Amino acid sequence: MTDRDSQPDVEHGRSRAPARGPATLLACVPNVSEGRRPEIVERIAQAADGVTGIRVLDVHSDSDHHRSVLTIVGNRVAVEEAAFRLADVATRSIDIRDHRGVHPRIGALDVLPFVPLAGTSMESCVDVAHRVGRRIADELGVPVYFYADAALRPEFRLLVNVRRGEYEGLLASIGRDPTRAPDAGPRLLGPAGATAVGARRALVAFNVHLRTSDVAVATTIARAVRSSSGGLPGVQAIGLPTSRSGIVQVSMNLTDLDVTPLHVAVERVRVEASRHGVEVAESELVGLMPATTTLAAAAAALGLPSLGARQVVELALERAHDA
Amino acid sequence: MTDRDSQPDVEHGRSRAPARGPATLLACVPNVSEGRRPEIVERIAQAADGVTGIRVLDVHSDSDHHRSVLTIVGNRVAVEEAAFRLADVATRSIDIRDHRGVHPRIGALDVLPFVPLAGTSMESCVDVAHRVGRRIADELGVPVYFYADAALRPEFRLLVNVRRGEYEGLLASIGRDPTRAPDAGPRLLGPAGATAVGARRALVAFNVHLRTSDVAVATTIARAVRSSSGGLPGVQAIGLPTSRSGIVQVSMNLTDLDVTPLHVAVERVRVEASRHGVEVAESELVGLMPATTTLAAAAAALGLPSLGARQVVELALERAHDA
Repeated sequence: MTDRDSQPDVEHGRSRAPARGPATLLACVPNVSEGRRPEIVERIAQAADGVTGIRVLDVHSDSDHHRSVLTIVGNRVAVEEAAFRLADVATRSIDIRDHRGVHPRIGALDVLPFVPLAGTSMESCVDVAHRVGRRIADELGVPVYFYADAALRPEFRLLVNVRRGEYEGLLASIGRDPTRAPDAGPRLLGPAGATAVGARRALVAFNVHLRTSDVAVATTIARAVRSSSGGLPGVQAIGLPTSRSGIVQVSMNLTDLDVTPLHVAVERVRVEASRHGVEVAESELVGLMPATTTLAAAAAALGLPSLGARQVVELALERAHDA
Repeated sequence: MTDRDSQPDVEHGRSRAPARGPATLLACVPNVSEGRRPEIVERIAQAADGVTGIRVLDVHSDSDHHRSVLTIVGNRVAVEEAAFRLADVATRSIDIRDHRGVHPRIGALDVLPFVPLAGTSMESCVDVAHRVGRRIADELGVPVYFYADAALRPEFRLLVNVRRGEYEGLLASIGRDPTRAPDAGPRLLGPAGATAVGARRALVAFNVHLRTSDVAVATTIARAVRSSSGGLPGVQAIGLPTSRSGIVQVSMNLTDLDVTPLHVAVERVRVEASRHGVEVAESELVGLMPATTTLAAAAAALGLPSLGARQVVELALERAHDA
């Protein structure tokens, strides 16, 4: 239910000097259904990295999820090209029919979200998602569903609705059920499955680990924390097993960090775990987080009413350069 | 006992692209004995800001301390000139003979530390301190003591030894006691008092507030926390009153953040306060903190084993630009 991509934004509304690089930046956070063969993940990352102006900021592989999350950044033209090239490599290298992992998925390139960074509008990211998605459908023959802000159907604003039943469920329904027809590409699934292409604001993907073998505890806590069950707004959460003995996880996506900051969600999981008499183990950040999330968590730890980017040397210098 | 300046360093050993600006950066963190007349503080800040290539990153005034901490950054030549110009304005605008604040001080421009940032060595900062200090002594007629890494006498490596007895004590002894003779400038104090000019690594200045009117509690906790009384290494701390009713403060300088991170010291104050049955109120950062301090505090709040700059979008982008 969570989508394991995470690419937070630079503060909106703050201008950056053009001299620093391209005036408008966006991020792309592909989630590919391969978390066990590093050489395949590396090949996918290299496909993106080969495009001039692209930076691969992070590659996060999870063996239990059998999934990797890449974070790439660049200007519009570079990101479009990089996203298509990595889609090409991922859909040719990963066979979703053999894929067994604990994380929900519908395809080799499972989700491909574009996230606005400094100077880029959401509208621009939606355009990028539609162009890249149609190219993936046309040139690679992969069915594409547009989700989040790029959704063409209201129900697909929620990724969970695109991914309902996962690859296996989609395989059974894509050809017959008109509500499962893709937005672009063929109405049939090949070895690469389907891809959800979206545009969205930054989110943070974060796993809290619990010292218990009982995944039902993680599921119960996930339900208490997530917004869809009446928990914290802007929090998606599922309980998952891990391959580590005696450890399960609450796997979260935080989609509205202004409303529910990460440290608040983590604290809520801790409180729930304590109610169940379960100890919290080390947590895990998937991909990156925005500076505002880091600052808010640090402020909480230090008892500060707030902590601004202007109060951290490196971030203040960055602003000074931009001014 | 604490010196209220704070200017942490960018990670050493990490190169920054020359295209970003001057290849070597240093910070200067003047502490001036004026925290109540904003127009005077503003005039001092403008004296520095008027130098090409200088950025005034922060100005923090404290009325109770009757003191302001400025954080300015630039290349060597610019910082030297800015430091001298603000020394000129501060020593002409502030009369230390009338100064009454809770923070220890010996002069109008009380301390003037230089801190290495990216690409700058401590040796270079020591040279800057000596050049600027001698110019202040020669051209402004203010006695100067070199401290920390710029100290010419071993006992003055500790600022507390320079500032012993404060302005009033120094006034009585500077002319007669050879151990109190300045390193540069006249052996007598004018209305501007004396100035301690130093070079040092980054430090963080941080105040934890306690909900009690009893400053003795703050002093006891400060003693439990600070290294000189057997507490945490790299922590200087004093208990001080504040003008807020029912609030006192533990005022800390953290001088070795690798050994004792800020959040560890704050937690220790919390534990001690709880032992005394005293509640902790909001804390206060004086000046700036380095990103590593922020990251460590955020990691603690989130239960992460660690959190690197590569995992925070804005800091990762900064690195990508530098690569």
